[in-house]
Amino acid sequence: MKSNFTYFMPTEIVFGPGKLKELTKLSLPGKKALIVIGSNNSMKRHGYLDRVIGYLKENNVESVVYDKILPNPIATHVAEGAKIAKENNCDFVIGLGGGSTIDSSKAIAIMARNPGDYWDYVSDGTGKGMEIKNRPLPIVAIPTTAGTGTESDPWAVITNTETNEKIGFGYRYTFPTLSIVDPELMLSIPPEFTAYQGMDAFFHAVEGYIAEVNQPASDVHALQSVSLITEYLPKAVADGNNIEARTAMAWASTSAGIVESLSSCVSHHSMEHAVSAYHPDIPHGAGLIMLSVSYFSFMASKAPDRFIDLARAMGEDIIGNTKEEQAQCFITALKKLIKNIGMEDLKLSNFNVKEDEIEKLSKNAMEAMSSLFKVDPYKLSLEEVKSIYRACF
Amino acid sequence: MKSNFTYFMPTEIVFGPGKLKELTKLSLPGKKALIVIGSNNSMKRHGYLDRVIGYLKENNVESVVYDKILPNPIATHVAEGAKIAKENNCDFVIGLGGGSTIDSSKAIAIMARNPGDYWDYVSDGTGKGMEIKNRPLPIVAIPTTAGTGTESDPWAVITNTETNEKIGFGYRYTFPTLSIVDPELMLSIPPEFTAYQGMDAFFHAVEGYIAEVNQPASDVHALQSVSLITEYLPKAVADGNNIEARTAMAWASTSAGIVESLSSCVSHHSMEHAVSAYHPDIPHGAGLIMLSVSYFSFMASKAPDRFIDLARAMGEDIIGNTKEEQAQCFITALKKLIKNIGMEDLKLSNFNVKEDEIEKLSKNAMEAMSSLFKVDPYKLSLEEVKSIYRACF
Ligand SMILES: [Fe+2]
Ligand SMILES: [Fe+2]
Repeated sequence: MKSNFTYFMPTEIVFGPGKLKELTKLSLPGKKALIVIGSNNSMKRHGYLDRVIGYLKENNVESVVYDKILPNPIATHVAEGAKIAKENNCDFVIGLGGGSTIDSSKAIAIMARNPGDYWDYVSDGTGKGMEIKNRPLPIVAIPTTAGTGTESDPWAVITNTETNEKIGFGYRYTFPTLSIVDPELMLSIPPEFTAYQGMDAFFHAVEGYIAEVNQPASDVHALQSVSLITEYLPKAVADGNNIEARTAMAWASTSAGIVESLSSCVSHHSMEHAVSAYHPDIPHGAGLIMLSVSYFSFMASKAPDRFIDLARAMGEDIIGNTKEEQAQCFITALKKLIKNIGMEDLKLSNFNVKEDEIEKLSKNAMEAMSSLFKVDPYKLSLEEVKSIYRACF
Repeated sequence: MKSNFTYFMPTEIVFGPGKLKELTKLSLPGKKALIVIGSNNSMKRHGYLDRVIGYLKENNVESVVYDKILPNPIATHVAEGAKIAKENNCDFVIGLGGGSTIDSSKAIAIMARNPGDYWDYVSDGTGKGMEIKNRPLPIVAIPTTAGTGTESDPWAVITNTETNEKIGFGYRYTFPTLSIVDPELMLSIPPEFTAYQGMDAFFHAVEGYIAEVNQPASDVHALQSVSLITEYLPKAVADGNNIEARTAMAWASTSAGIVESLSSCVSHHSMEHAVSAYHPDIPHGAGLIMLSVSYFSFMASKAPDRFIDLARAMGEDIIGNTKEEQAQCFITALKKLIKNIGMEDLKLSNFNVKEDEIEKLSKNAMEAMSSLFKVDPYKLSLEEVKSIYRACF
């Protein structure tokens, strides 16, 4: 058992089908909310935005809406959202939607209380890593997808379009104060995105389990998530109205978010961020799936120990005489899962990623998100990163 | 999977051998601490008190000591401690020692900021359940035993000597802000108390697993604790200097505290509190051990499902054709564990508890700690409570 670590996951999570309505009576961290939503109209179309505004009103909370967030959120919109929060004297921020809007709400919460540019505070890549002097506005997260785990972690993934950097950043005061995780809001996600998002959660759990900074609490959450996703993601993809599967996936995602809070993702995420920084049309989860077999086959060959537990949590029989052979059972299970959600034919080349980008992607991954490489169970060289990318074509 | 629940465990836990020294540089919630310790001199004798005072000084934090807490802490000392905190303008409270001192520090934190008697706020038994108007002082927990889990839960168990009630009470603002869990501070606990305290943690995990209010996160923490305690408690009892065993037990206790925060104890704890309310010389963990085989044999016969998982987590082979038979494998494993820590001869009669007290104890248990009976997986009648007690003699 790991014997030195810090446990901290302060977010209150109100979980369950129908729980959105609790907004009418929950104790909220302010009297005027900036509600951050995506630019694609889906929160309006499904009626979620009106419900949130109405429930807040019943709870005597005013609100203002900022609706420009892109699927890969950009720093420009962080600045604009923060400006609107300040102009309207909002005293907290609600992120409603997928990971992009909740992540943006965290970054906006920082910038509504602090001067300068968001990139002044980002602590990786070309970010200046300056100290955040004022405590961000309180954040309330209401996810409508099951995947990012942003409802239970401090991380915000924002893209700097000038430098082509897509960086996850956060600290102790960007944990949501409150998250309402209502699986009913996830019923309308189409199968393809259900699959992408669910696999994002899956990799948060897997990566947090193998990261050097794992701890006993992240371990049990990770194994639980991996096991739930193996069982329920294929069901949620097959039938989006299966509320049991949606509920299990919602918890698996939140639980994997706890893993990201207590442990860390590894360089698999850095390598995906490089891909979708240059190809913003590639969904994060799709990028992860396309890199995963190559990445984890190599990692499992170099640091096999923890992959055996993961394979077991996926219900895979452990066969083989050496640890290295046994660890490859995880790859067998991973391939089965990818097949069970209909994603076995996903290829980087389908998304117009070219082999001659490998050099650029490898350097971007190791620079913009260098910190995750430091917690890998085996430390990758530039050549190894390139060869992992190469095997994906 | 349970589909409706609230997850909230806001305490920051700094864990690991030697971590006490972090007090010199951690960000603390105030500038002047009331340090609450027991009346038995052990914090002074082991030098822990001097170390804490010195480390605080290095961190520019002043301190005042209150050293009267009894092993079964009483409401009178809560009032006295709160008075001293107020007189000295302390802005936070440190509980240093076993569960009794940390629990007292929580109750003192409430009463240092609120008028009246502590029993005005207690929400069970003869407590008046009044609203706590002012936020308690921040609490820092430094446990020197592995058992109560008070470092990661909001509960304070305090005895009212006038009414013979021993009641656990707490709410969202009595979670410690910070807990420093340093297994090195636990090396000096003698084998007998190591066993009692370790079994207290064991029962927190077991009870939180079978309680109706279990949730997915408490489940994984509970099974991890049960499994760690089955393996490492006999080792810690056999060799108190085994730092690996002490570390595993420290985490098992903290993890079981998380279970108490997310789920709940059941009436096994109510029944023990009744015993030690009338017999304050009986250590809490000893009381739990003496009641456990009778209590859980009955409970497992009425609500078998979750006991099978617990038996499996203890490494027991699951045998039997029916669920009821399989659930009894937990009792087999429990008896083995009690034997492995040398407690198989513990009997209520050795502690001068008489059979003619059964009526009184049963009524006290069901009145003073009624709330735990409500989350039992099978609801006990007064007659059943009596027969569980009777089988312990
Ligand atoms: Fe991700
Ligand atoms: Fe206890």
